[in-house]
Amino acid sequence: MSGGSGTRLWPLSRQSSPKQLHALTSDLTLIQHTIARVNADGGAFVFADPMVILNERQLAPAQAQIKEMGRQGVSWIVEPCGRNTAPVAAVAAEAARARYGEDAMVLLMPADHHIDDEEAFRATAIRGAHLAQSGRIVTFGIKPTGPATGFGYIRRGDAVGDGYLVDAFKEKPKRDIALEYVADGRYYWNAGIFLFGAGAVADEMMAHCPELLRLSRQAVVDAVVEQDVIRLDQRAFEAIDGDSFDYAVMEHTGRAAVVPADFGWSDVGSWSALWEISDKDDAGNAVRGDVHLEDVSGSIVYSTALRVGVIGAEDLIVVATEDAVLVARKSDDQAVKKLVERLRNEGRLDLL
Amino acid sequence: MSGGSGTRLWPLSRQSSPKQLHALTSDLTLIQHTIARVNADGGAFVFADPMVILNERQLAPAQAQIKEMGRQGVSWIVEPCGRNTAPVAAVAAEAARARYGEDAMVLLMPADHHIDDEEAFRATAIRGAHLAQSGRIVTFGIKPTGPATGFGYIRRGDAVGDGYLVDAFKEKPKRDIALEYVADGRYYWNAGIFLFGAGAVADEMMAHCPELLRLSRQAVVDAVVEQDVIRLDQRAFEAIDGDSFDYAVMEHTGRAAVVPADFGWSDVGSWSALWEISDKDDAGNAVRGDVHLEDVSGSIVYSTALRVGVIGAEDLIVVATEDAVLVARKSDDQAVKKLVERLRNEGRLDLL
Repeated sequence: MSGGSGTRLWPLSRQSSPKQLHALTSDLTLIQHTIARVNADGGAFVFADPMVILNERQLAPAQAQIKEMGRQGVSWIVEPCGRNTAPVAAVAAEAARARYGEDAMVLLMPADHHIDDEEAFRATAIRGAHLAQSGRIVTFGIKPTGPATGFGYIRRGDAVGDGYLVDAFKEKPKRDIALEYVADGRYYWNAGIFLFGAGAVADEMMAHCPELLRLSRQAVVDAVVEQDVIRLDQRAFEAIDGDSFDYAVMEHTGRAAVVPADFGWSDVGSWSALWEISDKDDAGNAVRGDVHLEDVSGSIVYSTALRVGVIGAEDLIVVATEDAVLVARKSDDQAVKKLVERLRNEGRLDLL
Repeated sequence: MSGGSGTRLWPLSRQSSPKQLHALTSDLTLIQHTIARVNADGGAFVFADPMVILNERQLAPAQAQIKEMGRQGVSWIVEPCGRNTAPVAAVAAEAARARYGEDAMVLLMPADHHIDDEEAFRATAIRGAHLAQSGRIVTFGIKPTGPATGFGYIRRGDAVGDGYLVDAFKEKPKRDIALEYVADGRYYWNAGIFLFGAGAVADEMMAHCPELLRLSRQAVVDAVVEQDVIRLDQRAFEAIDGDSFDYAVMEHTGRAAVVPADFGWSDVGSWSALWEISDKDDAGNAVRGDVHLEDVSGSIVYSTALRVGVIGAEDLIVVATEDAVLVARKSDDQAVKKLVERLRNEGRLDLL
């Protein structure tokens, strides 16, 4: 799933060049890492060639990045518009079914997340695959490292296979509630990574969101295929009443299971989140690009091209692209979203 | 005098585009303000057409700026290299003498200073002109507004005409000494602005720095003149052992006088100095360019072209040009010089 545009990483992340297309954590971009993660060496299971679902605007740069890393066999599914994750799941299942049959399993994951430990990721995916083989729709639950209020939570129920039944999905909580969740021990962060059989998810969608399923399938059946690019039918896809896979399926199905995951996950949802997972110097600074620091600590300084000098700063975010600069307190980085909103209101589409 | 390049205003001020060529305090650049200040309407005295002394690299942009403001009659004296201010004074005196005779008076002033009250400036210059007519070499003394350690000080002696004899010149003091100076009441900041008769200064230079005078004159006599541009002879000018006008003349001459000045002077010697003299919003922010602030106070944010967003900051300097960004605590802005030094050591001439 490569359709998003993380506005909280402005000014780096833009509609035309969203966060998954940027090298944030290493010399590879997030989408390159995501593709590298699902290599053929999956142990007991074999990863098939990946399919990337994205929009037209991101197609060419994403293709160039995957070509650059020498990866063959990737296919591209182009959404004519954004309709959230449930149609993406339906399209992925339908495409996998068409190619590999009813028993094909789909590992659905965002292209803009960071996962530190690839081996652990694959081992966890295989645990999920065993559960999915028995008809479960699997979500991966990240063990909370703190009372985050920016994620939904999953409460586990009884054990099943290598995971647990899902007892409840919880919306993004207030801080005091999040503290309870963390203390409780049965709660996981909902990372939005899923694993399911193509047939199983279709069954559940038929039961819980049949119209969404029908239109998604129609969009695949009527797609325009050009070599390795599948352009979903615009009329069918646009007619879908968009919904998240969590809301449309996971919260209603009796087949939901959660597999605990501990592979160094981050949604890289903000500059401070990026700081958290970045390599840092002795003063706790994460630095990228042509940057010079003097008496700076606990800060993240990221420059794509410009020379950036920072003198005397603590816990600061400084980001410079070729047309915009952000300076913010690390504790304030959620305000970036507001700033982007303001740009939108001002009609500064060149900066979005 | 337009030869300097204020590195403390990096990244805006560069060798090829020093601070006098930038609009810092209004829509006019500092050199435009300097030219506008000496208009013909000088009251009892009439300002002749100004002469600008600068280097070859700055000639074309400076000419363009003066042309843009519609000012006629300016002539340009090009230094083949920098030799500090004493040769500049000698050249100015020689050029004025050649054009207007021995009695011509020279008002020698830096092109990169800010003067808030032009009327007061002209009135003060006229007081100085009266003293200079009587053979004095006049410097203007700025009444200190605080114990600055970045300026030299002048101690006044007995009254003479509209001013005082100079009792002593003092180097940039330590802070405790500066506090004494301010408390004393007889001390002024040395602003590096001078007024003297062309003949009088030549006499003094003959006495105190004859070789410097001889070579400076030679550089004028052998200059290559092309319309309104006078290119000083390279061989003669390069042979000069450079010195400041203060050291070479003012500290030795018995003719030094100081005229107290109160015209809102600033040398705009740092970003915090610019913040001091800038118009500020209710939160005490001085802002220029495509800038958006959120929860910011006491800061200066200056952008030439890029969009700059600042969220959550206090007493910060943020400067963005097309190729470099500076973020610094306002109290640290002298460290900018160090940063520029570092760039020089790294061989980053593109950024100097």
